[in-house]
Amino acid sequence: LDYQHVQVPFEITLWIMLASLAKIGFHLYNKLPSVVPESCLLIFVGLIMGGIIYGLNDRSPPVMDTDIFFLYLLPPIVLDAGYFMPSRPFFENIGTILLYAVVGTLWNVFGIGFSLYGICQVEAFHLRDVSLLHNLLFGSLIAAVDPVAVLAVFEEIHVNEKLHILVFGESLLNDAVTVVLYKLFRSFCEMPTIKSVDVFAGVGNFFVVGLGGVLVGLIFGMTAAFTTRFTKDIRVIEPLFVFLYSYLSYLTAEMFHLSGIVAIIACAMGMKRYVEANISLKSHTTVKYFMKMWSSVSDTLIFIFLGVSTIGENHEWNWPYICFTVIFCLIWRALGVLVLTFFVNRFHVNTITSKDQFIIAYGGLRGAICFSLVFLLPDFRRKKLFIAATTVVIFFTVFVQGMTIRPLVDLLAVKRKRESAPTVGEQIHIRFLDHLLAGIEDISGHWGQYYWKDKLEYFNSKYLQKILLREYDQPKSSIVLLYEKLERKHAIELAEAGQLGHAPSHPSLLRSAFLCSDDDRTVVTDKKLEDALNPDVLENIQEILARNLYRIRRTGPAYSRHTLPGETEPVEHAKEILILRHKSL
Amino acid sequence: LDYQHVQVPFEITLWIMLASLAKIGFHLYNKLPSVVPESCLLIFVGLIMGGIIYGLNDRSPPVMDTDIFFLYLLPPIVLDAGYFMPSRPFFENIGTILLYAVVGTLWNVFGIGFSLYGICQVEAFHLRDVSLLHNLLFGSLIAAVDPVAVLAVFEEIHVNEKLHILVFGESLLNDAVTVVLYKLFRSFCEMPTIKSVDVFAGVGNFFVVGLGGVLVGLIFGMTAAFTTRFTKDIRVIEPLFVFLYSYLSYLTAEMFHLSGIVAIIACAMGMKRYVEANISLKSHTTVKYFMKMWSSVSDTLIFIFLGVSTIGENHEWNWPYICFTVIFCLIWRALGVLVLTFFVNRFHVNTITSKDQFIIAYGGLRGAICFSLVFLLPDFRRKKLFIAATTVVIFFTVFVQGMTIRPLVDLLAVKRKRESAPTVGEQIHIRFLDHLLAGIEDISGHWGQYYWKDKLEYFNSKYLQKILLREYDQPKSSIVLLYEKLERKHAIELAEAGQLGHAPSHPSLLRSAFLCSDDDRTVVTDKKLEDALNPDVLENIQEILARNLYRIRRTGPAYSRHTLPGETEPVEHAKEILILRHKSL
Repeated sequence: LDYQHVQVPFEITLWIMLASLAKIGFHLYNKLPSVVPESCLLIFVGLIMGGIIYGLNDRSPPVMDTDIFFLYLLPPIVLDAGYFMPSRPFFENIGTILLYAVVGTLWNVFGIGFSLYGICQVEAFHLRDVSLLHNLLFGSLIAAVDPVAVLAVFEEIHVNEKLHILVFGESLLNDAVTVVLYKLFRSFCEMPTIKSVDVFAGVGNFFVVGLGGVLVGLIFGMTAAFTTRFTKDIRVIEPLFVFLYSYLSYLTAEMFHLSGIVAIIACAMGMKRYVEANISLKSHTTVKYFMKMWSSVSDTLIFIFLGVSTIGENHEWNWPYICFTVIFCLIWRALGVLVLTFFVNRFHVNTITSKDQFIIAYGGLRGAICFSLVFLLPDFRRKKLFIAATTVVIFFTVFVQGMTIRPLVDLLAVKRKRESAPTVGEQIHIRFLDHLLAGIEDISGHWGQYYWKDKLEYFNSKYLQKILLREYDQPKSSIVLLYEKLERKHAIELAEAGQLGHAPSHPSLLRSAFLCSDDDRTVVTDKKLEDALNPDVLENIQEILARNLYRIRRTGPAYSRHTLPGETEPVEHAKEILILRHKSL
Repeated sequence: LDYQHVQVPFEITLWIMLASLAKIGFHLYNKLPSVVPESCLLIFVGLIMGGIIYGLNDRSPPVMDTDIFFLYLLPPIVLDAGYFMPSRPFFENIGTILLYAVVGTLWNVFGIGFSLYGICQVEAFHLRDVSLLHNLLFGSLIAAVDPVAVLAVFEEIHVNEKLHILVFGESLLNDAVTVVLYKLFRSFCEMPTIKSVDVFAGVGNFFVVGLGGVLVGLIFGMTAAFTTRFTKDIRVIEPLFVFLYSYLSYLTAEMFHLSGIVAIIACAMGMKRYVEANISLKSHTTVKYFMKMWSSVSDTLIFIFLGVSTIGENHEWNWPYICFTVIFCLIWRALGVLVLTFFVNRFHVNTITSKDQFIIAYGGLRGAICFSLVFLLPDFRRKKLFIAATTVVIFFTVFVQGMTIRPLVDLLAVKRKRESAPTVGEQIHIRFLDHLLAGIEDISGHWGQYYWKDKLEYFNSKYLQKILLREYDQPKSSIVLLYEKLERKHAIELAEAGQLGHAPSHPSLLRSAFLCSDDDRTVVTDKKLEDALNPDVLENIQEILARNLYRIRRTGPAYSRHTLPGETEPVEHAKEILILRHKSL
């Protein structure tokens, strides 16, 4: 027996296997996942595993290695998040998200830090040796909302898209703020005196870290898109480039002390549309599938490790400090959301309701990032107290908030995500309004969201597409692309239901589609819309519309990270087709 | 800048990126890959890289780490080979393959070892200090044909399936022999005296290592199949199990000093049919795609590393020893193939022609396995001579034989692989003959290939399928499955060509299909065939046949590891459909 030789890959494989089997186990009992979020169950598995290791070895089980977390487990999750980020709601709410992510996080850090320092001044609590700087350092790591925890919970409760993107976007973008503050306070802790110049340098650092991350990400994203132009003859390695370039963007950003999370998100969002156009359909399926698989496994491993690492002897218990930490985390977040939303609502027509505000405040879950950061702290007397407090905050938010948020969403009747995709009518009107508003903003000289979007789109089609896309000579309207996608999906479902060859050709629907689009055409006066919908494109749309009108009403179901779209009931479709056919006969 | 922190993943990612970009580069110029095999070009890139590293650092570039090769680079390639192994030709020729792999390898090892020892006795060559045991040890590592090198070359020349499987199967299965002999001679080198009992133990070890590998592989393969029964609710992690269990089988076999290559092949071949039936279509695409991608990258990295590791100062040059090694490798292999084939041909009707024999002997390429094994040798005076000789043999086989084998195949007019898949008629007849021969063997009491195949099929459908398949209540005939697959492929192609909804329904073809299958039915008298094609199954086939008859003539093109099936001309199909439709109108 030669275990030494294969130990490293064997143990890694076994951990991943454990994670995958745990996931299967939960889904075998259908009732369990609907009551308890998966993250709680996984932490529980981790606790049991940790207990077993502790019992057998009689020493603390290994804690989750910070390097493993930041270098190997976090990137797949963030890549998945960035690649599947719904870009429209994200960019529509980018201002609000940034406000929450930057100002909100600062508010929380200083709020929690200073008020905990206040608690430390109470003689009875025996905490006089925790300095203000240590409290602020602790605040900087405990304040940040965790994207992994937020994703795990919010994907199961299906709140409306805006609410989801506000919480999730904040959790992703606050990384830049957390990185800067954490490093700033850590270096302050080690400095003998702090000059005001250092503080200003710290503030300037925000922009460097955040915007630098975006820049690094975009550079790698564009390079990835450019590379996939040349993969036509070796389709099998296409998916690799998506992963390699994203990972390189993350590592490069981390190397230069920029925000790796921001970089990988910028990379994924930047490359997506070009890469998708360049690579083959099967490569694309593989990319999507593997991203989901990878992030799903990483996420499982993180929660299991979180449980395992909790067991052991690295905790110092101090009731007042820990209780007040949990309370302050809740209070300051609630206050922050209230104040910031007040300002946001003054400048927006589409306001954030008080119910939504409650869910935003309540959805501020903490997770593995805090946990890794607290272990990264330099050794000092009270490090174990901080570890204990962080663990309690994470467990409180994941278990108590994570498990009660679904009943609360039901109770408050928070607006849910619509289960169906928008219809063609809606999509055409949204697009029409976009062009109209861009025109209005252009004429009135207001440099708003639509103006910039339009300029970006122009830049994209004029320069970027020519460089990054392989087959630029056939630019297709996004609606045409959508229909091609739907049609492919439909064809597969038909074939699986054994109905191919029986699809009706709908002459009546064809005529009505023509009429309908003629009506639309008389409405269209905006020059830009006319450009986008020139006769050829329109004909293309009409042709595809005609063949698909009975399909339009139902597109994909709501997004869930544990299923891939396109695995729905083919039998129903087949039935519908039969009914339609009978009618036409 | 904090390079230390991200060094390991960053450098690994960069190496993979280099390999992928090198692959893209070669395929940009269409002429290059058709003249020079990719393996040669990659070694060349490696040589240049090694030269650069050597020039910059002024010391030898790092050699390929044996652990990295055996634990991380080799398994993906072998998994890919095992999973896509054409099982029918493999099992039909298993006897011949085993003869080549076991007896042939032994013949080569002892032939090369003893004749090199003879060379060492010549005073003028200054080689008197190389003992017989060292020569045999060297023979054991240099004799084995390398699966990676064979795959890289044989996939490009498209010889007929039998020839391909003979060389490739031998290269895979000789691993057990190589492992045993290499370890035996290595331990003999360290022993003071060798008892005859040790020699017998060594011979017994063959069976343990080989059959043990098969057993470990089958256990993990069956577990994998069983696990995928329960993944219905979390489709995204399905592909993971295929990879995890295969890798575990490899690692476990290596841990117990069994043949990892044999284990992973048994695992992949064992699980394939059950896993494919259990997992979703998209999961299956991902599994296939990722396997190809992974093996393709591993293979690229191996050849690049082979080039890089060559540059440096770990060679000792001795003209006679090196030249005679190359000559003996060629001669003993040629003799071995001649003698073994003489015996094989006496017992087979379908003989191996002398052209085929030449290609089998000439296709015995050596590669990275020899290279890794020679670096694993214990340190002794002449290790550098062995390294030099191994490098020369590898380069000679890969460059000279690898580059000339394609012209030779053309010159000798070796029977090529048929480019088209067998038609339905052929498939039905092959199946009919299988059942007939199994019946004949059963009656005549001859326990031949068909008898065992039939027994295995019975065991499979009676016990294994019930345990390992999720939806056992609907067992489908393999022909029905084939048609479902074709239909899906067709549907996607139709949709991509924008022709969905225009597919003709072929009433005339439907009738002819019925007639044709009725004819078939009168022929069918064998009980087993009737069982397999009961009325329900037949109806199913007829229905699908009717809708697909114009598709039958063309299925997938010839197998190539750099492309995935199904990326052929949809335009032509669309045209054909249109023509058929016009006729029916």
